[in-house]
Order: sequence, then structure tokens, then C-alpha cells
Amino acid sequence: MSKEKQFVTEITPQGEDFSRWYIDVIKKAELMDYSPVRGCIVFRPEGFEIWENIQREMDRRFKETGHRNAYFPLFIPESFFQKEKEHVEGFNPELPWVTEAGGEPLEEKLAIRPTSETMIGHMYSKWIQSYRDLPVLINQWANVVRWEKRTLPFLRTSEFLWQEGHTAHENEAEAREETMRMLEVYRDFVEDFLAIPVITGQKTPSEKFAGAVDTYSIEAMMKDGRAVQAGTSHYLGTNFAVAFDIKYLDRENTQQFVHTTSWGTSTRLIGSLIMVHGDDRGLALPPKVAPTQVIMIPIGPPKTREAVIGRVDELYKELKTAGVRVRVDDRSDISPGWKFNEYEMRGVPIRLELGPRDMENGQAVLVSRASGEKRIIKQSELEAEVEKMLEEIHRDMFEKAKQFRADNFHAVDTLDEMKGLLEQKRGFVLAGWCGSAACEKQVKEETGATSRNIPFEPAEHKHSCLVCGEKAEHTVVFARAY
Amino acid sequence: MSKEKQFVTEITPQGEDFSRWYIDVIKKAELMDYSPVRGCIVFRPEGFEIWENIQREMDRRFKETGHRNAYFPLFIPESFFQKEKEHVEGFNPELPWVTEAGGEPLEEKLAIRPTSETMIGHMYSKWIQSYRDLPVLINQWANVVRWEKRTLPFLRTSEFLWQEGHTAHENEAEAREETMRMLEVYRDFVEDFLAIPVITGQKTPSEKFAGAVDTYSIEAMMKDGRAVQAGTSHYLGTNFAVAFDIKYLDRENTQQFVHTTSWGTSTRLIGSLIMVHGDDRGLALPPKVAPTQVIMIPIGPPKTREAVIGRVDELYKELKTAGVRVRVDDRSDISPGWKFNEYEMRGVPIRLELGPRDMENGQAVLVSRASGEKRIIKQSELEAEVEKMLEEIHRDMFEKAKQFRADNFHAVDTLDEMKGLLEQKRGFVLAGWCGSAACEKQVKEETGATSRNIPFEPAEHKHSCLVCGEKAEHTVVFARAY
Repeated sequence: MSKEKQFVTEITPQGEDFSRWYIDVIKKAELMDYSPVRGCIVFRPEGFEIWENIQREMDRRFKETGHRNAYFPLFIPESFFQKEKEHVEGFNPELPWVTEAGGEPLEEKLAIRPTSETMIGHMYSKWIQSYRDLPVLINQWANVVRWEKRTLPFLRTSEFLWQEGHTAHENEAEAREETMRMLEVYRDFVEDFLAIPVITGQKTPSEKFAGAVDTYSIEAMMKDGRAVQAGTSHYLGTNFAVAFDIKYLDRENTQQFVHTTSWGTSTRLIGSLIMVHGDDRGLALPPKVAPTQVIMIPIGPPKTREAVIGRVDELYKELKTAGVRVRVDDRSDISPGWKFNEYEMRGVPIRLELGPRDMENGQAVLVSRASGEKRIIKQSELEAEVEKMLEEIHRDMFEKAKQFRADNFHAVDTLDEMKGLLEQKRGFVLAGWCGSAACEKQVKEETGATSRNIPFEPAEHKHSCLVCGEKAEHTVVFARAY
Repeated sequence: MSKEKQFVTEITPQGEDFSRWYIDVIKKAELMDYSPVRGCIVFRPEGFEIWENIQREMDRRFKETGHRNAYFPLFIPESFFQKEKEHVEGFNPELPWVTEAGGEPLEEKLAIRPTSETMIGHMYSKWIQSYRDLPVLINQWANVVRWEKRTLPFLRTSEFLWQEGHTAHENEAEAREETMRMLEVYRDFVEDFLAIPVITGQKTPSEKFAGAVDTYSIEAMMKDGRAVQAGTSHYLGTNFAVAFDIKYLDRENTQQFVHTTSWGTSTRLIGSLIMVHGDDRGLALPPKVAPTQVIMIPIGPPKTREAVIGRVDELYKELKTAGVRVRVDDRSDISPGWKFNEYEMRGVPIRLELGPRDMENGQAVLVSRASGEKRIIKQSELEAEVEKMLEEIHRDMFEKAKQFRADNFHAVDTLDEMKGLLEQKRGFVLAGWCGSAACEKQVKEETGATSRNIPFEPAEHKHSCLVCGEKAEHTVVFARAY
């Protein structure tokens, strides 16, 4: 078996076993490794750099919308969880507890934060006195822990990295406006930066955040048809304000509770972009988030090697100066064919090949990882051609993901129809829903699919509940989800 | 009492009580707040942004020297600590333990990481097989926890933020080279970016990192004469490689243990820069790390207000475009004098005043926070003048701190001389040391001062031990330390 062939066959094809494909790819591309702690992974440099790129761009967008970062303690006293009833019920089963420290048992045990509404609520009650202190617009980048029974690297791990925004406002209108603003920041980021199309909408009451009045989400479709909730934004009303006594003196000199929001995205985004864009050859990273955007590979016989590498280095510097994330692989003991496969597997958006013939003609070859398209370009136009191609790759990847979603999105009228459909096909289902938790539960029990959200812009409106046949209050997206 | 007067008097003078001054300043400038968890603080946006600026610049320097970031689990299994004897003895008393999670007791309890040599050693043993895999150059930005008995915001907190570099090399020479390279990265960063002069040197055996062969540090002098260890770099030899079985096949096809290093700096740096540069008026932030470098304050009577603010906005945009971190305070219900005091207290390096007279003359007033110097400049030369002044402020702050250190650095010959000195004066003491742990211990017991390091370039060489009078093996810096 040739090396090249062997290389590819180490990845299980998606059609054979999607879960194995996923694990094969993230291990082989060195994005992560399992750790000796149950459900916790190690983010290796290739994987962590994806997160760094996500962080940098998202942080920029948070700051542009007026937010500042802060950092709150990892530990949350047990009593804090008792203050908001729904919240404690939602998170209690997943908490790890510190019970001893410094060689002694603790008087009050401390949870490792699963999210920070309670701690931040406590602090806000100290900081907020008057309407002049509002709004408070704070974000935190942090690790959080939820002791999960079933884990999957990036998508569901016991410890994960995330950001959590927490804001406080004078009234409901402003808090709701913030909730929707951040949902839109998420939608735009995920579509524009990760090339993942998402469905924005509202969670049903049974799927909302523990302690929220309303939860909104963006939902993405993976290549196996399952959903990933890629980000959520919550209007918390005065629930946490009442629980933590966050009051302010309003413009009429009256004490009022603030209205709060919270919103979060996490390292799940890494898992999502792998499952949306990857294929049987491995990762395919959207250009804006890819740690390496262009990999340069010198080719040709040993006698021209030195000259070719010299020119490659010049072109490297040119691209680097232009702000392109570029690398050269000039290892001499590895064949170009092997390298081609390696960087396809690692999902580098553009491969640049340069050989002696290209040198003579003042040209270079650009190959797109996503489409396989090959372009012969003039070296003198390298920077413009690379930037154009990166843009096109982003657009094509986004459109392809959108088309895939359209192809795997089906409207149904009845639960039987939905069951029949999901037996044959993967994907999302659009259906009418009367609004009762019982009907929603029945869908879940009989199909394994949960309500993802009530989309703001459904493809069509359904008028009767798929379960009971009564008048539909909402048109809902259902899917099996990660 | 005028508002201005009242403002300043809320800060305890340094000469009266340095510790109270410190707490007054960091609370009043809203850098931090106490949290409900013992020894853990909240980094408020004004404080956290200092850390973000430190992170961004240090991260750039790590990447320039070939390092990449990764992320390892927060939890460390109990058995891992047993593998390196000195390490477990050093850290065991400070560990918090998770003993239950997900509603059940854990089979093996998990420590919250105090540092990650053990976890990373375990992973490196999986990743490193051959000399081709070396060197491994990884850094991690993370939260760590050490359950401290006595805490002080930023300088010693139970949970703190830091970076920890962990590298593995083929041999001792390369690992030692890396150890010194990173010490120099720290020295240059702290002096060049934070304007804090430091003493580089080697820790004595009793003060080195638990598990290291050699520890090197940079030591800074606070304004009360105490030392802060601002960064450490460790050559770990094969200690962790043996403990975690990190072996590689060398160029001669023989199994060898790798040689590892680790190096760290933390949010202590925030505390240090406050204690080095602050004064009775509050914070004084060095320009490169200051969240706001220029605060613009419009002045003059109400009737010219609109015109002045219009011009301030134009100048604001100009500075912003030039990359200066600038803000405008155009609140109309607060007097300019009050604002002057506020931003002096907050340590903003330059105040720009603009009034109707300045408008007429096409000029503006720049005032340095550190020196109080006032400059009238042409608006047409604003950008260049601001950049020049920021550079000068940095240089002056650094020189001033150096002078302070020189003024409070005394060489002694005997322990009695040292005791007499420290009764009258604050500061660092330079003395000869025979190399015995007993003499070092006696210094600590009788003076409260610990050996800070054996400086690479001592101001002078001492030839007899300050305690026993025997031949001095080293000239050592002693000081009381945070």
C-alpha cells in the first residue's frame, strides 16, 4: 500500500461511522488528546489555536458592542445555589464539590462553577446602587465544569472553556434588547467567521436555561444531520436580581430590581466547525479561523531544491507581511504527495505548490482544500490571488453548508410522518406544536429528537400540532442533538 | 471640605500605612473586589484590562520565541502528586480537593491544579517518542489555586491567573538554554513594558521550586522596600521525566529521558506595578500597560462647552486612529478639578485639557500623571507630542524606580549589621553567604528577610558569610518579601 493511500485509510469514512470519523480526525490532526481525568480533554496546540482565533475575533465584537472583560472566582459557595430555585435544580446534578482544602475539611463546601450567574449576581448587588451605575456590561472568558455522564471531545466535556456575558439593566426593554443584540453577535460571528449557517430562534420553556425567563439560541446542523446548540442568549428578568438582591435607585428615587441577561458560547464551536466542514479526507477549516491559511510546499528534484526553496521563502515573507497566516513545509525526507495528504487532513484552506517549471514561468499553483480546485497564478499577483481565493473558499464553504442543511431539512405534519422520515433520513424536522410540554415530550420519547428552537424565520408555517393535531402555537425545529 | 480634598484623603498615605494605602488604592480605582470565597478576589474590568494588556504582549513574546499555547485539565488525580517526591511535599499543604461530583463520591480524589508539571508530564510521555518530536515548546494561560493562609489581593490569592510554560528537550544544554531564554523574556518584558527594574539571579536550594534542579527568578522592589518575585524559570533536569516516564529514542537509537523546564508569571505582576509606581494620589500606570493612556477633559464655561467638545472629539479620533488608548470624559455634572483628581487616582499617564483659550491658540495642555509636568503643545502636533510624552513617562518611571531601588539597597558584612539596618531602613540587603541552609535560616528567623536570589550581577562581591563569617560562596540579595 502506498504511503498516501495508507494515510487516508487511517480515517474512518463518514458514511461508515460518523462518530469514529470525528474521533479519528481530531486525534490524527492533533487537535486534542484524552486526559487521565474522566471527561476532560487536553487542547493540543493545533486545537487551541482554533480557540485563540475564535476568542480574538469574538472578544473584538464584544468590545465593539460596549462590553468589558472581568474575572470572577472559580469556586461558588453551596448556599449561593440555593437562592434561585430553578437554577439549583438545573445544575445540582452536574456539580463537582471541593470539600477539603489546605489539609482541613471546609466549613461550607464549594462548587466548581458550571456558570457564574450566582457569583456575579452577588457581586453586582454590591456594585449597583443607582441608575447611574447601569447598564453593567461584563463578559468573562473562563473554564467551567459540568460533570457529564456521556462526553464527546469539544462538544460535551466535563471541563470546557467558554465566555459568559452578564449584563444588568434598568428595565425589561433594555435587557431584552441586549439579549437580542448578543444573539445577533453570535449569529453573525458563527456565519461570518466559521462559515456555519445557523437557525436563530427561541427555546421552548422546557429547553430554556435554568433560571431564565426566555432563552434564545443559534442551532447548527452537523454532517450527520444532528444539531449543535452553538450559542445561547438569555433574558433572566428579575429572577437573579431578586435572588441576590440587586437593586438600584431609579430616576424617580425608587428602589427597583435590575433586569439581567446572560449569554454564552464555548469550545463546542470547535467541534461544530469540524462536523460541519470536515470530510473523508479529514478537517476542512474555514479560512478566517484556520491557524494556517496557506501551506507552501516546494516540489521538484533535489538539484533544483535550493533555488525553489529560496523563492518559496521570498513568497512566504510577502504573504506573511500581508497578514496571511502562512507556513512552509520544506522537509526533505517527506514526499510532496505525503505532505499534500497531511495538510488536506489538517484542513489547511490553501496549498501553494512551487516547482522548477513554475519558477521558469513566474507562476505558482494554488489548491483549495475544500473544493480541490487548482489555480495557476502569477507570482507577481500572489497576495491578491491568495486573498481572493481565501474569500471564495469561505463563501463556498458557507454556501455548501447551507445547501446541505436545505437538503436535510424536512417539514412534517404528524408525528408518524416524522418517525417514518427519521428512520430513512438524517436531519432537522420542521413541525407545528401546540405549546404543551406533553406533546414536546412525546416527540422526544418516540423519535429521540428534541425541540431545538422556535425559529424567527421558519421556512414555512405549520398550523397544527404534529402530536395532538390541535392548533399550532408555534412552528418548531426538532432534531437529534449533541 | 472641598470635594477635591475629600477625594484624596480617602486614600491612606503610603508613609502612614503602606498596606492600607495599597488596599485603598486598588478598591477605589475599582481594580478588584473581595469575593465571598476565602482568599479569592474578583478582577474588575479596570484591573482585568491591565492583565489583558500584560497577556497580549507577553503572549506575543512567547510566540516570537517559538512557543505555542495549549490547555490542560484543571483537575489532577491524587496519584499524580505522589510521583515526584519534592513536588508533593511542596504543594500538598496548599491543595483543594474535589471529593464528590455528579452526586457521588469520587473513586480517586482530584486536586485543583496548583501548577501543571504532573499533568503535562503525563501527556508529554504519550506525545514524545523520538528526538524528532523535540523540543516541545508549550505554554498555558490558566487559573491555578493554592490555598493560602494569608492572602493579599493580586500578590497572594487562593485562585490566581497565570501562564506556565512547559518545555521538553533532548539534553541538559538545550533545556538550560531555554530556562535562561525565558528568564530573559521575563526580565525584558517587566522592565520594558511595566517599567519595573528587576534583579535576575538564581534561587538558593531552599527557595527553589519543588521538583526543580535550579530555579531562577526576577525580583522587584516595592515602595515599602519589600520584594516581589515577579517571575521564575526552572530547569527541572530529568526529575519529572523520570517520574512520568518521558523518554525518547535519540539520534543513536537509544532511549533517553528528556530534560524539561517550566516558567511562570502571574497576576502578581498587577500588584507589583501598583506597589512600584503608585503614590499618595493613587495609581500611576506605566504607559504601555495602562488601559487608558490619555484622558481628555474639556474645560471652560457652559457657553463654549459645545465648541470645545466638538474639537475634543476631533482630536480624540486622531489619537484613536494613531493607536493611542484614549478616552474622553465630557460629563457636565462633574467639575474638571474632580476629574483631574479622579484620573490621577486611576493612574492614567496623560491628561489632556482643552479649553476655549486653547481653541483660540490652536493648542492643548498635556499633564503627566507621574511627574506632574505640564506641556502646552500645538494641536497640529498632537499625535507626535503624545507619543513622545508616553515614551518619556515610561523612561522616567523606570529610572525613578531604579533610583528608588538604589537608594534602598544596602550591602552588609554581618547579621548584626543587617538587623540594625532593617530596624531603621526598608529595602534590600546584599551580603555574603557560605551556602549553608542553616545560615540562611538564621537570617530569616532573626530578620524576617529571605534570600531573594543570587544575582548574576551583584553591585559588589562579598567574601564572607554574614552569619558564620566563613568564606562566602555567593553574594546574595536578602529582603522581606510578599
